[in-house]
Amino acid sequence: MYNERIRRVLDHLEGLGLGQALVCDPMSIKYLTGYYTFPHERFFALHLSPKGTTLFCNLLFPDATGHADRVVTFADTDDPLPLVAAACDPGAPLGVDKALPARWLLPLMEMGAASGFRVASEAVDATRSVKDEDERALMREASRLNDEAMGWLAAQVRAGVTERAIAEGLLGCYRALGSDGYSFDPIVSFGANAADPHHEPDDTAFVPGQMVLFDVGCLWQGYCSDMTRTFFTAPPTDHQLEVYETVRLANETAEALVAPGVEFAEIDGAARGVIERAGYGPYFTHRLGHQIGMEVHEPGDVSGSHHELVRPGQAFSIEPGIYLPSDIGVRIEDLCIVTDDGREILNHYPHEATILTV
Amino acid sequence: MYNERIRRVLDHLEGLGLGQALVCDPMSIKYLTGYYTFPHERFFALHLSPKGTTLFCNLLFPDATGHADRVVTFADTDDPLPLVAAACDPGAPLGVDKALPARWLLPLMEMGAASGFRVASEAVDATRSVKDEDERALMREASRLNDEAMGWLAAQVRAGVTERAIAEGLLGCYRALGSDGYSFDPIVSFGANAADPHHEPDDTAFVPGQMVLFDVGCLWQGYCSDMTRTFFTAPPTDHQLEVYETVRLANETAEALVAPGVEFAEIDGAARGVIERAGYGPYFTHRLGHQIGMEVHEPGDVSGSHHELVRPGQAFSIEPGIYLPSDIGVRIEDLCIVTDDGREILNHYPHEATILTV
Repeated sequence: MYNERIRRVLDHLEGLGLGQALVCDPMSIKYLTGYYTFPHERFFALHLSPKGTTLFCNLLFPDATGHADRVVTFADTDDPLPLVAAACDPGAPLGVDKALPARWLLPLMEMGAASGFRVASEAVDATRSVKDEDERALMREASRLNDEAMGWLAAQVRAGVTERAIAEGLLGCYRALGSDGYSFDPIVSFGANAADPHHEPDDTAFVPGQMVLFDVGCLWQGYCSDMTRTFFTAPPTDHQLEVYETVRLANETAEALVAPGVEFAEIDGAARGVIERAGYGPYFTHRLGHQIGMEVHEPGDVSGSHHELVRPGQAFSIEPGIYLPSDIGVRIEDLCIVTDDGREILNHYPHEATILTV
Repeated sequence: MYNERIRRVLDHLEGLGLGQALVCDPMSIKYLTGYYTFPHERFFALHLSPKGTTLFCNLLFPDATGHADRVVTFADTDDPLPLVAAACDPGAPLGVDKALPARWLLPLMEMGAASGFRVASEAVDATRSVKDEDERALMREASRLNDEAMGWLAAQVRAGVTERAIAEGLLGCYRALGSDGYSFDPIVSFGANAADPHHEPDDTAFVPGQMVLFDVGCLWQGYCSDMTRTFFTAPPTDHQLEVYETVRLANETAEALVAPGVEFAEIDGAARGVIERAGYGPYFTHRLGHQIGMEVHEPGDVSGSHHELVRPGQAFSIEPGIYLPSDIGVRIEDLCIVTDDGREILNHYPHEATILTV
């Protein structure tokens, strides 16, 4: 499996005119070698070329033997960059990870480790973007657990409970479901707090009648789920219902459009068009979605500036929202995986406007 | 306060021969402007020069007005890099954040945003490294809470409890103490698990007689604590006690040496010498410590390769350890702040070998 993934990356690199690359994203290294460590501020990278793979590992990390053709280790007090330069072909350009930080890139440039330096993460990203059957099964299960968790969340809403208490309690729910934990810090927003799409749960206590937004996800065997639902806790006003139904229509219009050969930007545009025609365009302040897999945000978003065509196996979120400052925020989000002739929606928790009994 | 911090950074930059810099570390931006957001993969940076500060913010982030002399906003679909290039002086070199990723650095180089590019984080890091009186008070309180939490942890050890259960329960303890939560994911290691210094708590269940290691920290008003203690739960063997007392002596020898004008490397060497003389040198596999403040790991470690002299106001950990694979791991860690004539140890939980009643 790892050999096949590395072959696909090398093919992509060749298409970019590159014969070598330096990957430093820990999740990409895990994807390509099976070896995972979180290096904090320490150097950690994988050099790839048709001649083989070399993994550069601090001795503090668990033993990486067997995870690459060559493993080069160094201590905290060593400078690993000359070791990296020695593994590179100085006569050829080097594709570098988009995340390679200046403190490592600038010295490698000064050492003349390669004849040129270009961001080449797209080779790894494009490979990771297309999920194989095993990966799809893991993502399906992660979202199934997340559907179950949404039912648990809806049942927690009662007078006086805080956003933080629900957000923290969700971890126990995920664990009970067999998940490995959060795929990202949960968002729990009561009332006008939902008008900030990235609101962090705080000590706000629930007052019956407020709307409630949950944007949550869990990990299942290394793969992520991510879903948002917005609930009423009293019969909605006409204004609230109009906003809600606009977001729902935007979500469902965009989801119905997902199929191989459609531009990501078209999908974003379909949702945005619904919201604009309803007069709420300025209040949909973010892209429609993001790709997802081993990480909750993977490269290649669903936005107006992404003109690539959708391909089978790609997994991403569809999450339109309307945020009215000091008033309400509504977002409805599902994950989908592109199939050969359409899309599989991974979330099955209903979209219909729901009034929770609190 | 922010003006004073920016002035100190500009002075440092001038000493490096630089008149402008681009900071992208969110914590450094918070330190310099009071504005905090976590940008995920989105662009977020502060340009500094004697002419003023410019903050580059995605519209998705909360409003940053008033946090810099100029705030430049952009949407998810805009490319912010031409805006950054326009704010730079193309005729002068630009100091860049060590973390500035290749995907932003290489385009800025191609656009000719500056006459040269050099990592200049040391100007910000050196400023952040020296804590003022307010910061010292916050760190003292964070460690006082952490001392209390260690007592709680010691009381949780009983047959069958899992590492994960204790690690997750610690959050409630921190909250009850008034803390804002973990400063890093807690390490709870039973028995031989402690031989991996970065072991992550798992479902290992405690068996009476095992040694137990806790490496934990909390946040207090944005500042971090970090402490490690290793406990016995049965009378130690001679071998265990020898390892323990070696680590304790290494810790106390190093702590007693901390004072202005001593090299960081000397402090590391003092602890390492104790462990080497006891014959355990190869089993102390990491640096002695790290600086700490708003982040649990701040630049400038306590290691054999760091030859700068310690200065009043610097805060760092002293955490020697001995890790014997498949056997035991012992680490004893305190935080200290350098005073005008020595050091203040922030942790007061005892070092003496302790047998918990389980």
